[in-house]
Amino acid sequence: MNGNATWIWYPGDFEIRLHEKMSVQRRARGVMYPAYWRLDRHYSNIQFRYTYDLEREERIAIAAEGTFSLFLDGKDNCRSNETQFTLPAGRHEITVSVFNDAEAPALYIDGPTVRTDSSWEVTSYQYEWKNAGSWTFDDPACPPSRFRLSTTPLEPVGQERIDGFPLLDFGRETFGYLRFHNVTGSGAIRVYYGESRAEALSPDECMSLDRFEAADAAARSDNGIYTLAEAKAFRYAWIHADAGVRWDEVTMLYEFVPVAYRSSFECSDPKLNRIYDMSLYTLHLNTREFFLDGIKRDRWVWSGDAYQAFLMNYYSFFDLDVTRRTLIALRGKDPLTRHFNTILDYSLYWFISLYDYYLYTGDFEFIRQYYDRAVGLMEFVLKQRNEEGLLEGRPQDWVFVDWADFQNTGAVSAIQILLVRSLEAMRLFAGRLGDEEAAASYGAMADEIKETTFRLFWDDARGGLLHHRVDGETKPTLTKHASMFALTYGYLSSEQRRSVIDNVMLDPGVPRIRTPYMRFHELAALCESGKHDVVRGELLSYWGGMIELGATTFWEEYDPALADDEHYGMYGVAFGKSLCHAWGAGPIYLLGKYFLGVVPTSPGYETYRVAPNLGGLSRMKGTLPLGRGRISLEMDLSSIRIESTAGMGTLAIASAEPPACDAGEVRAAGDGHYEVTIEPGRNYCISYRSAL
Amino acid sequence: MNGNATWIWYPGDFEIRLHEKMSVQRRARGVMYPAYWRLDRHYSNIQFRYTYDLEREERIAIAAEGTFSLFLDGKDNCRSNETQFTLPAGRHEITVSVFNDAEAPALYIDGPTVRTDSSWEVTSYQYEWKNAGSWTFDDPACPPSRFRLSTTPLEPVGQERIDGFPLLDFGRETFGYLRFHNVTGSGAIRVYYGESRAEALSPDECMSLDRFEAADAAARSDNGIYTLAEAKAFRYAWIHADAGVRWDEVTMLYEFVPVAYRSSFECSDPKLNRIYDMSLYTLHLNTREFFLDGIKRDRWVWSGDAYQAFLMNYYSFFDLDVTRRTLIALRGKDPLTRHFNTILDYSLYWFISLYDYYLYTGDFEFIRQYYDRAVGLMEFVLKQRNEEGLLEGRPQDWVFVDWADFQNTGAVSAIQILLVRSLEAMRLFAGRLGDEEAAASYGAMADEIKETTFRLFWDDARGGLLHHRVDGETKPTLTKHASMFALTYGYLSSEQRRSVIDNVMLDPGVPRIRTPYMRFHELAALCESGKHDVVRGELLSYWGGMIELGATTFWEEYDPALADDEHYGMYGVAFGKSLCHAWGAGPIYLLGKYFLGVVPTSPGYETYRVAPNLGGLSRMKGTLPLGRGRISLEMDLSSIRIESTAGMGTLAIASAEPPACDAGEVRAAGDGHYEVTIEPGRNYCISYRSAL
Repeated sequence: MNGNATWIWYPGDFEIRLHEKMSVQRRARGVMYPAYWRLDRHYSNIQFRYTYDLEREERIAIAAEGTFSLFLDGKDNCRSNETQFTLPAGRHEITVSVFNDAEAPALYIDGPTVRTDSSWEVTSYQYEWKNAGSWTFDDPACPPSRFRLSTTPLEPVGQERIDGFPLLDFGRETFGYLRFHNVTGSGAIRVYYGESRAEALSPDECMSLDRFEAADAAARSDNGIYTLAEAKAFRYAWIHADAGVRWDEVTMLYEFVPVAYRSSFECSDPKLNRIYDMSLYTLHLNTREFFLDGIKRDRWVWSGDAYQAFLMNYYSFFDLDVTRRTLIALRGKDPLTRHFNTILDYSLYWFISLYDYYLYTGDFEFIRQYYDRAVGLMEFVLKQRNEEGLLEGRPQDWVFVDWADFQNTGAVSAIQILLVRSLEAMRLFAGRLGDEEAAASYGAMADEIKETTFRLFWDDARGGLLHHRVDGETKPTLTKHASMFALTYGYLSSEQRRSVIDNVMLDPGVPRIRTPYMRFHELAALCESGKHDVVRGELLSYWGGMIELGATTFWEEYDPALADDEHYGMYGVAFGKSLCHAWGAGPIYLLGKYFLGVVPTSPGYETYRVAPNLGGLSRMKGTLPLGRGRISLEMDLSSIRIESTAGMGTLAIASAEPPACDAGEVRAAGDGHYEVTIEPGRNYCISYRSAL
Repeated sequence: MNGNATWIWYPGDFEIRLHEKMSVQRRARGVMYPAYWRLDRHYSNIQFRYTYDLEREERIAIAAEGTFSLFLDGKDNCRSNETQFTLPAGRHEITVSVFNDAEAPALYIDGPTVRTDSSWEVTSYQYEWKNAGSWTFDDPACPPSRFRLSTTPLEPVGQERIDGFPLLDFGRETFGYLRFHNVTGSGAIRVYYGESRAEALSPDECMSLDRFEAADAAARSDNGIYTLAEAKAFRYAWIHADAGVRWDEVTMLYEFVPVAYRSSFECSDPKLNRIYDMSLYTLHLNTREFFLDGIKRDRWVWSGDAYQAFLMNYYSFFDLDVTRRTLIALRGKDPLTRHFNTILDYSLYWFISLYDYYLYTGDFEFIRQYYDRAVGLMEFVLKQRNEEGLLEGRPQDWVFVDWADFQNTGAVSAIQILLVRSLEAMRLFAGRLGDEEAAASYGAMADEIKETTFRLFWDDARGGLLHHRVDGETKPTLTKHASMFALTYGYLSSEQRRSVIDNVMLDPGVPRIRTPYMRFHELAALCESGKHDVVRGELLSYWGGMIELGATTFWEEYDPALADDEHYGMYGVAFGKSLCHAWGAGPIYLLGKYFLGVVPTSPGYETYRVAPNLGGLSRMKGTLPLGRGRISLEMDLSSIRIESTAGMGTLAIASAEPPACDAGEVRAAGDGHYEVTIEPGRNYCISYRSAL
């Protein structure tokens, strides 16, 4: 054992407990609005074990979150709860019971050689011994439950008086705790928060508000500063106080995960550059204890939203801690009775997210640790196959697919495509674990369901996958969803692919996708189809449209047809719309994956492909994470410069004439396409001629 | 709605949360020794609903354990967390979210007509709406988590000085909190508790101890009294204090459930009377938040122990609250991964306990409320049937049956008998619920397994059921267990019955049952066989033997061959034995059910049978609960007097000549047996002549 001692716990329980707390942070005008699914809970009663072999006795220090008792060699009547213990020399097994019904039980033992880390095992007394969960917590005085995000003070950038009350403007959407400095006098202070100015100025309709007594604030102040207990999402705060209440100033404590901004994108279109940067900030605000859907609303962890946030994250912060926490929290505990967030598709996105996690990070240890939970979830999912072998929703399931005017009764084709992808993920994991039988079984099921889906849903005349099949009859509805997922996941023949692009994706006769949620996948599919120029146009109009309306982060939804403050309403609630929504940050992914064009081709970017595409721009440059490494790329209509620090890359370019490269061989790949191998640590400069 | 408002919660969660807390109360010399099974937890996030129809608006008061928000008619963006709310007139649905991660979320609403009770529904967001759990908590200021047992002060009956330190004697085994009055001075106080005098006088080996500082005690005193935080099981306390520490006196706060002693037994043998009374006290001490195995050790809820305590309770306190709490806590929550208390047989005893609950109480509402949990458990159990249809332990299961020198590998016959009885219980419940299909299926399985068991295990030559069958081969071991359960449950033909009595129960060649746990069932089976005289002898020697050694409550185990303090040891620990063990109170059941002879013949004693048997005594009299009613009975060798307050009874007596009855007709039942119908509210006096 070499590293520092770290706090350890039952694997997943730190995350599951944190998720429980975070899932009740949403407020509707000051009143709790908890997530409407079962919140899973940590095991309160667990036991750790570890076998050591010491040449001489050794003194260890023990800290626990909860009540603990330690004993050696199974002698459980001879227990110690002292914080120091002398381990006898020789080979012995330490067992430590820890009980904690408030926070996840955790243990920290530090000795000259015996120290807690993830090589210790733990059980919840269900005949399982698992490697303990652990993270970066290595301070015995700071146990896991104390985990908080980082904070930093921020000041408002503007202040005006409206109806005699100060309206503070923090310049852009933000998240954190308002702070009152040196409050005096007596009476109440009421704060009306707004993601928009209009919201803050609507005391009767704003979603977030606070109310407190000046005297309480003064009493609870620390160095004259009263920091409000609950963090809020806002840009504006309108502060009403009773006469006689005074303060020096109001500032805030911005709360955030200290991610590294590991990507950049800068191009010939300044508007696109602003969209990119605002996307990064939008994603960052939603990158918290978990990836949230939106920081004002719902402040919940949704699997379908997280699936997209994960992908954006791989092209920006590459923060794996938030990713792992989110994956663990979504899976929760058994028994599985409902699907993730009550939605059938959301269980499936979890498998695909796990697949992506492995592809982008190469971290198979995480997969290994939670593989049994994946197996359990897949068992649960597969129970819902109908007699044709297709996955259907149960009465209690929400089969979501998208907010749109279609029925999701019976077997929905998009669900089958997601299931196939999920089974492929399971095949991969089982294979990596050496369980060839399981791998073959998952693979056979994937193949069978894919075949059935194409046989029953593919419509030759209309050139795409029909939407659903009820009671053995495929309905004539054509939607884009199944076809575009099939395209993205590579399930189409080249002929089907062409048909889907022309007859489904680009045919105005097929119902338009209106939600930003599903447009993420649609725009990705269009890029997969080489329609970068179309996508660039969409980015400029849709995301650009929000910026023109004054957005500082991207919204949950945007409809250019609405007027003024109508933009802020949703679900019949005047300021119900989230103005900082993770899925609004999709340009990070689209510009990173499809314009800069970097995609791992083996887990953890051991190999990768870079196929930059200007998509109508005259130049662009950018940086992206390659796992722990980095790639920088600069491109205009005649040259490409590339530099990377990790992995073996294959640059793929289309050129109207054979390109030249100063540092590597250019290989013709046919049909005007060329490839160059990119080795880490070298600079490549390629001259080519844009095929456009 | 008529009754008072009561606190409501998710059904079972009050009990499950209480069980979680109680399962970590055991101490090994002051150090936590938690139960070694998964402790289930309450749902933290739940929602209540209730539909009302009011002619005029009504003001309600709302109290919650946890954070709540209330809204009407599904408008969940318009929530209130005020403690007063005006319900509009008309028909509306109230929904209340309650979150509580510390204690089971609970709700209390009181209005002129709208009030919380078990007609409200609740969900844990798993697509289930269940009737809320509730009990007697009707004070908004006293929420369910404040539930504590009753207490009353007790003084020691004796005190002596040993080595200069006071040894207190409370006269008999007790349970509660030691109290120090007017502690002064500084220094430490150490308390060594003993269920026996020897234990208290062994500071280095006693199981229970306390240590505190005099100054702390003084600071924490209330009206000069410092009550220790943790309750202990003890009779003696030896108190060591540092020089200079003083106090006025040491007393205790006895903690108990205020049960009614609804049974009595008094007979011609004073020793048996003492055994009966001491049994009642032993059971009472173990009748707590739940039925415990023992109050010093393990202080846990074991299903096999509880099965016996339930039966004793029906013949004494008839306390259904503790019974229901215990049944709920044992079942816990899904997923079922291990058997109750890790023991296969203990899952089965739960069904049989549920069956007994219904038989003795007639309370089908309780069965209805938890039926789905019974179904789930049975599904879990039935998955373990082998290819012959017999139930086998999995590698992680403890197949207990009894502490004895036999192997429980393969299919154990006693387990099959318990399974048959369990399936019969499920058949009954399903039938009562109108699910004829399920009833038929359970019934068919019960019949099939019974048939298979007798076919594969019954040995004609040896006249009983062999012990187990491994890999398709029945092993030659003969034990009493399966045969005696089969006898008690009525599964034997009269010929098999005779054979079991002679060739198994009374044959000294069959290994003796040595544990008091299984002797409970053995002695019951002997009574079922009419061997009351043998049983009376056992009571006097085994239980009487403990009394002769100074017992004030009955022990976990008693071996007359041991010398002196050896009696107190167990599991290699000097004072490891529990001297107050619920299963030691078996005489309550044996004397009530088989000597006084009262047994319900339909649920809730609507009809019952009373077949008194002096078993060698010259006279006896006693009282027993008949559900809410009561029966009193007095008998000697020539007369029987009976009076009851409920139910229709059938008195069954053996008499050497036709009996005479002053108040009812005597019917001949053949073979020297006679019957008299006992109606409530009448006195019966029967003269007969003992057949002995």
